[in-house]
Amino acid sequence: MRRHGELRYLEEIEVQPVKVLITGGAGFVGARLARTLLANGRIAGESIDELVLADQFTPPRDLLAHSRVRALTGTLIEQSAKLRDEAFDTVFHLAAAVSAECEADFDLGMRSNLDSTRALLQALRAAGNTPRFIFSSSAAVFGPDPGLPMPPVIRADTLPTPQSSYGIQKFICEQLVADYTRKGFIDGRNVRLMTVVVRPGRPNGAASGFFSGIVREPLNGQAAICPVAPETRVALASPARTVQGIIAVAEASRQALGGRIALNLPALTVTVAEILDALEAVAGAQARALVRFEPNPAIARLVSGWPAVFDNSRARSLGLEPDPDFHSIVRAFLADRAAEPTLLC
Amino acid sequence: MRRHGELRYLEEIEVQPVKVLITGGAGFVGARLARTLLANGRIAGESIDELVLADQFTPPRDLLAHSRVRALTGTLIEQSAKLRDEAFDTVFHLAAAVSAECEADFDLGMRSNLDSTRALLQALRAAGNTPRFIFSSSAAVFGPDPGLPMPPVIRADTLPTPQSSYGIQKFICEQLVADYTRKGFIDGRNVRLMTVVVRPGRPNGAASGFFSGIVREPLNGQAAICPVAPETRVALASPARTVQGIIAVAEASRQALGGRIALNLPALTVTVAEILDALEAVAGAQARALVRFEPNPAIARLVSGWPAVFDNSRARSLGLEPDPDFHSIVRAFLADRAAEPTLLC
Repeated sequence: MRRHGELRYLEEIEVQPVKVLITGGAGFVGARLARTLLANGRIAGESIDELVLADQFTPPRDLLAHSRVRALTGTLIEQSAKLRDEAFDTVFHLAAAVSAECEADFDLGMRSNLDSTRALLQALRAAGNTPRFIFSSSAAVFGPDPGLPMPPVIRADTLPTPQSSYGIQKFICEQLVADYTRKGFIDGRNVRLMTVVVRPGRPNGAASGFFSGIVREPLNGQAAICPVAPETRVALASPARTVQGIIAVAEASRQALGGRIALNLPALTVTVAEILDALEAVAGAQARALVRFEPNPAIARLVSGWPAVFDNSRARSLGLEPDPDFHSIVRAFLADRAAEPTLLC
Repeated sequence: MRRHGELRYLEEIEVQPVKVLITGGAGFVGARLARTLLANGRIAGESIDELVLADQFTPPRDLLAHSRVRALTGTLIEQSAKLRDEAFDTVFHLAAAVSAECEADFDLGMRSNLDSTRALLQALRAAGNTPRFIFSSSAAVFGPDPGLPMPPVIRADTLPTPQSSYGIQKFICEQLVADYTRKGFIDGRNVRLMTVVVRPGRPNGAASGFFSGIVREPLNGQAAICPVAPETRVALASPARTVQGIIAVAEASRQALGGRIALNLPALTVTVAEILDALEAVAGAQARALVRFEPNPAIARLVSGWPAVFDNSRARSLGLEPDPDFHSIVRAFLADRAAEPTLLC
């Protein structure tokens, strides 16, 4: 009888599929993360049996067509009630309203970023299997408070004083993830993304969108507007390095992560002028000539409040390095576009 | 006609009463703040016409009997819907579930501390008159994260990594107050209270309650249990200094406050042994002999995670000083008890 019981137990273990959830899975970073996970086939040493993409929008067709992908379409608050009945092994929580939206509509930001995250965390707590939970926070948690000038270099222990509702909401969610982790409801990890450049497609309402636009549009032969001065600095990362960082944080042991405070992904610091120099070096003077400077004080105020220089040593201890230079980012965008033109327009 | 209009305008200004709200107004700190405000008669240079005490419990009788006091009894979430129709000039938000409660019942803490604060902030935003809003946060926002040891001295820009749900909830509310202030919905100020000693009455469920109990009970001829070691250090303040600090933050100009980050009230750092030395010096060896050490690992773990030493320089710039020593705190408790025995039992 005892041996029979053991066999049954082993059978039950074997039939539990490894399930991964990506919220915001139809977005650019979410879809790229999904493709990378499907190509790897594994996460933290385990084969991925099912990849669930939750989003307000339908995922790209290549992902929808994949045999291991299931799409959940609707708001995260609606979906969270159903997610209580599913045991995910790993959850990547990328869904969010972006910075300019949250600044224009305070209640939308609170609902989309704070209430949705709480609903998701409560669903995972109810499911009861302590999944790895990777929360995509943002470098936008940092900003210069009237009483606290921003340090020249952002370190792991720099106090964030967010100067946007988006940054506040991200920082609040980091706190929730830390406490849900401490309580044993999830195995949470907060990872702060840098500005992702070059994003494909159309501008998405983020105040940082032009950093991609001033490269992407000229490479497509179109004019682009730069709303900030050429000397404006930005801490950025390519889509590939961003996804690599998110996965590394998901796969790291808790000991390697070193505590519950958020990990700043490695950042390449460049000026707008250096971005345009790289554009010109790769695509010629006629590409650069398509960029016109047209100052937008609202965007300039937001962007100038973001930190531009990060101490990358904690990320480096996880094996993560910033992009080497902006030239490589332009070339990678062109290579991606050549390989998968339908995914990038 | 124009002069007539001006007169009417002035008359309308004159009939607007100055209204102050204290949430948690029936609690110890809230009631003491109420009595101090009524004795002062003014806040930030204006006569107080009405003092509203919102609490789950009925305020003490002396306050209820005061002609300028109105009590609102019920949960803050219930009350907030009604508060939308009232224009308060100053709001002191003290209502909260305490640390041990929040650790024992996660959902209670989230509801009582986070949801209630959001409901109150939304009510004040809807009222539309940008009141001064003083949020009583706590030194319990600080704690040693597994990846970030606590610095020996806590400064204004020290990154809080709360190690309790209570601390997380307080820190999240600080973020909300900062953003509601930045958006112009309120004129918010976050003030972090130290452990308040000596509290009168009975233990209130806070993990720090014994710091009062080991003084109060012996002074009342009763035995008391100390759950931590004699060398345990604590950052504390007397009730009088705490209320003085809260009022100073309410009355300070935004410029004097220096930004939106929370102000740590000044702290006196003492050990449990020094507390008992002071008790003995003021009330004799027989008082000290009533305290028995009986280690409680859960409380010791919570308390040892709290910071014990604060850089008081920012508080000092507002004219705030820590209590000079613990002897003065014991004497002040005895003087309060002699003056108002009914308020302290």
